[in-house]
Amino acid sequence: MDLDLARQLSMTGESKIMLFVIDGLGGLPHPETGRTELESASTPNLDALAKESVCGFTQPVAPGVTPGSGPGHTALFGYDPMKYSIGRGVLEAAGIDFDLRPQDVAARGNFCTVDGKGLVSDRRAGRITSETCVELCEELRKIRLEGVELFVEPVREYRFVLVLRGDGLSDAVADTDPQREGAEPLAARATATAGEATARLVNRFVEESKRILRDRSPANMLLLRGFARRPDWPSMAEVFKLRPAAVAHYPMYRGLAKLVGMEALPTGPALDDSIGTVRENWHRFDYFFVHYKYTDTAGEDGDFERKVAKLEEADAAIPSLLALKPDVLMVTGDHSTPAVLAAHSWHPVPFLMRAPWTRADGCDAFNEVALQRGSLGTFPAVEALPLAMAHAGRLTKYGA
Amino acid sequence: MDLDLARQLSMTGESKIMLFVIDGLGGLPHPETGRTELESASTPNLDALAKESVCGFTQPVAPGVTPGSGPGHTALFGYDPMKYSIGRGVLEAAGIDFDLRPQDVAARGNFCTVDGKGLVSDRRAGRITSETCVELCEELRKIRLEGVELFVEPVREYRFVLVLRGDGLSDAVADTDPQREGAEPLAARATATAGEATARLVNRFVEESKRILRDRSPANMLLLRGFARRPDWPSMAEVFKLRPAAVAHYPMYRGLAKLVGMEALPTGPALDDSIGTVRENWHRFDYFFVHYKYTDTAGEDGDFERKVAKLEEADAAIPSLLALKPDVLMVTGDHSTPAVLAAHSWHPVPFLMRAPWTRADGCDAFNEVALQRGSLGTFPAVEALPLAMAHAGRLTKYGA
Repeated sequence: MDLDLARQLSMTGESKIMLFVIDGLGGLPHPETGRTELESASTPNLDALAKESVCGFTQPVAPGVTPGSGPGHTALFGYDPMKYSIGRGVLEAAGIDFDLRPQDVAARGNFCTVDGKGLVSDRRAGRITSETCVELCEELRKIRLEGVELFVEPVREYRFVLVLRGDGLSDAVADTDPQREGAEPLAARATATAGEATARLVNRFVEESKRILRDRSPANMLLLRGFARRPDWPSMAEVFKLRPAAVAHYPMYRGLAKLVGMEALPTGPALDDSIGTVRENWHRFDYFFVHYKYTDTAGEDGDFERKVAKLEEADAAIPSLLALKPDVLMVTGDHSTPAVLAAHSWHPVPFLMRAPWTRADGCDAFNEVALQRGSLGTFPAVEALPLAMAHAGRLTKYGA
Repeated sequence: MDLDLARQLSMTGESKIMLFVIDGLGGLPHPETGRTELESASTPNLDALAKESVCGFTQPVAPGVTPGSGPGHTALFGYDPMKYSIGRGVLEAAGIDFDLRPQDVAARGNFCTVDGKGLVSDRRAGRITSETCVELCEELRKIRLEGVELFVEPVREYRFVLVLRGDGLSDAVADTDPQREGAEPLAARATATAGEATARLVNRFVEESKRILRDRSPANMLLLRGFARRPDWPSMAEVFKLRPAAVAHYPMYRGLAKLVGMEALPTGPALDDSIGTVRENWHRFDYFFVHYKYTDTAGEDGDFERKVAKLEEADAAIPSLLALKPDVLMVTGDHSTPAVLAAHSWHPVPFLMRAPWTRADGCDAFNEVALQRGSLGTFPAVEALPLAMAHAGRLTKYGA
């Protein structure tokens, strides 16, 4: 459903919708047991829920496409991830809770090593410590450029965010990162006339940085990529007539939620913290996005057993979520992160929706095998919210 | 398949396609038995047909979207309902068999009650009788507006159709219906410059009506909405190279069929009448749309048992339809109307297609549970006709 149709059909109401995102949910069979993480985990609550839900798999972006966290979430929020894309710089800023203003231009930065000829010999500067990163960023903050305010914010290890704030800035600037070692860092180049002034400012920043970093090997240079401005999207309140809240501990997910106009509620790192936050704010909102991160982290680390344990932790939260009596509860992931791949993957993501007015579809467990009987089949993740809206009685009829 | 591609690939031929629409076909489980209307009904003929058909569910518009009868049918006729939409006024005119001319502007009218302050106190004028409606329309027909011919046609109870006929009319006019009680009827307002003259005429009509209706409480005022002109769509003959006939008793479905260029054959109210009409005209056409209404009516009334009975009546017609030996027979609905909701719903609609060159998919009954094994899965309703065309040998190869 595109946003124009959603805007046309959505209605306000009293019903409540909850989206529980188990990050990196989907998996692949363990080579020894032939069972996926979900099949290996003991998930009695999710299994019971599947029996009374409509089930299937979400396709976050398109068949074969591995989504980053950005598109994985925007799709679940009802925004077509091919149309509503987020620049790398903006995502990186969101990830450190940096509140970008509409006119700001943000870029992701890497400290790197260049050799005597000025060629990149290590794009990650030997993975310097986060402490060194903080220290280097403090040095770079001393740079002054006429007409713009500069922010150089450490992220982790060799990563930082550069933000330019001022009038007349543009994100029509190409990466300075050559994306391979043995090449020279590129000069910032405008990709459109509007970007010329900004490209000049960036080049001046890079020149100054080069001078400051000269003796700080292995971090003796920097690379910038993903120049971007905060997207100006219609809010979920405007499009879907929802009062949406995000309950996520990690800044990036809070940032993503804020891009669609959710209120990001402060919460602690544990799932119990999240549940408490939802409970305390239950009366104030009618849509809750609850984010659980640790399944993805375990998957990315290639730690099958830990991912299984984290899935069991997520499962244990289900009764408390159900106790709040959401009219519609969706459980899914933003993408799959099979531990055997130790990375995000393109595999469709397990999905269930427990709601009034569903037809039972005979799935007796919540895993990649049992859900194949689900009546939703594999469907675009962007359709999950409209479906939930329908079951919540929040979509009016189309056409007479 | 969009119409351009359909136009490019369609071929004339001798084969015959039949679409049997069981209106409001899909349902939901009865709270006591856990079985849907179709599961509760005895449908031996449809069950036998399912065993030798390709099966699945149609999605009339999009996931979560509840279709009106208009989009539900245009999709089955092969026209994307998001692109080929029909204004409320046109649908209402079709519903009373009023033959709109291309330049006419039609609107749906409600008689309503206004209080002493002129605020709407009942949008349906206490549901006056159809006889009163006829009488009031006769009064309103006396209104004369310069340069246009007026038609005020009773529909049922408080509903009527207003048609303006003349040169230079436009449907760029907003509703006068405030859509809620306690508000004043709105003045007709042009939504584009082209609509200004028409809006003035409408306002003059409303003023005159107000005067005529003043003492006719509870029907002492009227509201107009859905100003629309008859859409000028390419015909099924032109696009799909078919000679299409509609066999429907209810005027609205005859009207919908005429919008895509079908010939609407006169027929009686019973399903036997429809079968007779198809039989008599079998040689003249190669596409038959056969419409059965009463399942939807029962669903809308929330009468589970009656819907079950009407499904059994539809089932009993199958042998007579098969006896005509259509090359391709499709059985489906324009949308679901679960009796437990007493309304149209967003749920995908059971579908079967019996045709040569199909792969059996092991569905052993025609209901919402058994059809989940169908090889078509849930697919856009607009794809049903191209699929039938292919099986009827009426689509040529795409590309070399």
